[in-house]
Amino acid sequence: MTAFTDDHKQRAAAWFEALRDDLCAALESVEEEVAQPDGAGGAPPSRFERRAWSRDAGEGGGEGGGGVMAILRGRVFEKAGVNVSTVWGTFSEEFRNRIPGAAEDPRFWASGISVVIHPSSPLVPAAHMNTRMIVTTRGWFGGGADMTPVFAVEEDTSAFHAALKAACDAYSDDAYPRFKKWCDEYFYLPHRGEARGVGGIFYDDLNAGDWEADFTFTQAVGRTFMDVYPRLARRHMHEPWTEEQRRQQLVKRGRYVEFNLLYDRGTLFGLKTGGNVEAILMSLPPMTAWP
Amino acid sequence: MTAFTDDHKQRAAAWFEALRDDLCAALESVEEEVAQPDGAGGAPPSRFERRAWSRDAGEGGGEGGGGVMAILRGRVFEKAGVNVSTVWGTFSEEFRNRIPGAAEDPRFWASGISVVIHPSSPLVPAAHMNTRMIVTTRGWFGGGADMTPVFAVEEDTSAFHAALKAACDAYSDDAYPRFKKWCDEYFYLPHRGEARGVGGIFYDDLNAGDWEADFTFTQAVGRTFMDVYPRLARRHMHEPWTEEQRRQQLVKRGRYVEFNLLYDRGTLFGLKTGGNVEAILMSLPPMTAWP
Repeated sequence: MTAFTDDHKQRAAAWFEALRDDLCAALESVEEEVAQPDGAGGAPPSRFERRAWSRDAGEGGGEGGGGVMAILRGRVFEKAGVNVSTVWGTFSEEFRNRIPGAAEDPRFWASGISVVIHPSSPLVPAAHMNTRMIVTTRGWFGGGADMTPVFAVEEDTSAFHAALKAACDAYSDDAYPRFKKWCDEYFYLPHRGEARGVGGIFYDDLNAGDWEADFTFTQAVGRTFMDVYPRLARRHMHEPWTEEQRRQQLVKRGRYVEFNLLYDRGTLFGLKTGGNVEAILMSLPPMTAWP
Repeated sequence: MTAFTDDHKQRAAAWFEALRDDLCAALESVEEEVAQPDGAGGAPPSRFERRAWSRDAGEGGGEGGGGVMAILRGRVFEKAGVNVSTVWGTFSEEFRNRIPGAAEDPRFWASGISVVIHPSSPLVPAAHMNTRMIVTTRGWFGGGADMTPVFAVEEDTSAFHAALKAACDAYSDDAYPRFKKWCDEYFYLPHRGEARGVGGIFYDDLNAGDWEADFTFTQAVGRTFMDVYPRLARRHMHEPWTEEQRRQQLVKRGRYVEFNLLYDRGTLFGLKTGGNVEAILMSLPPMTAWP
């Protein structure tokens, strides 16, 4: 187990911000391709709007840091949110025994990026990517990427999984099967008996004893998502869809809400530790139906 | 503490069904008043559709019973659900120590009615009413009624509270202040720092030692809701509303979803004990936005 240093913290936080910039640009460039359906007189392409926030100390423990929410409401992406945050403080009693390494010393530092994309078209899959680095008396990475189509297309699912597999294989031989299984188990709605989407990868407590290797993997997950997702969105964004397909999309989004509010650990943890509510719930779809 | 007998069970279950019939008729009669805006050529008024279900034994414990979901999708009421159920069985280990009287003997019986109304118009308040009787080695009533307007109107809120106060006052002197406070505390979203709606009453573990009195109160809560709510809906259902008001309604409904999936004990308990998912989540609004 390597110790995570201040230099590691700085490099990780800087990476999450750099990835945010690149990812926002990549999604904006997709938006540009359909921004003017009515010719030169059409609306300008949608852009991400950023809003910085500072951390309010909640029940989970005090101190500082904050983040920046970036949100785009566009034609291809009905709602895309890219959040980065870097926060530090002291865990409250309630969390000290639940967070690795916090029982000995309740101080923590955490930095990460979270991306959730809800496309307008029911034929373009929704997607999520998140990576983070946490430091208590221990240090680790966590994250993943997964996709939630309304109508799964085998070629898309394969391409998405293949891209993540390549990123995993470059890190270690057993990473992909482990992280894929973890994803399938995590993004599951027991009350419905159904998966949230078609999976991807999910991992936590990642510290193989070589910070550089773990960090390189973390970067690869981000870059992979940034490469594969826009490609899949472009495949379908010009296809016409029906009212009935839109209706099914809104219902599918309801399942997404059910998962995030009933089971998602990050969401529940964030809300209970006085995290930024708008940033945490930015993951929720813009329009949802329980007909 | 009186023992709850089989006769008590029968009378309670029969009451919940009778109330369901009356309440459905009351809401349908509101629907009829705006069912034909285009004159004789308009669509027929919407009616409740009923679907019976049988209990699947889930994690919470096995055995039998079931219920009937009734749902109306209309013009005044975009989605109104009235569920009745009567179920019995044996609590699993997990619940034996959490349910009053179940540690001694894990068998239970429960019957109740649950009503959730999401109106089409943002000017007509959403509303909820629920009453139930539970029997373990102990027996008790629980329930309540509360209202969630998008734009609270003082006269409506007063009328709603006054009606519930009258029902409470006929039962006991301290019931109204206690049950009103309980409601305010219960229907609260800590992560938002806001109430779900304008309150009403909420109570649980009600067994004052006189089954007849407690049952009479339970009936009064149902009758009161059935009297006051349609009256308030009629006050506003013909008022025109704007797109902006509709937008605010969809956002307010998002808060409703957040409350039900993050905090509502009945919802979480039901999903964990293998309750009927469709019946439990019928409370969720037909269309919701997190813009």
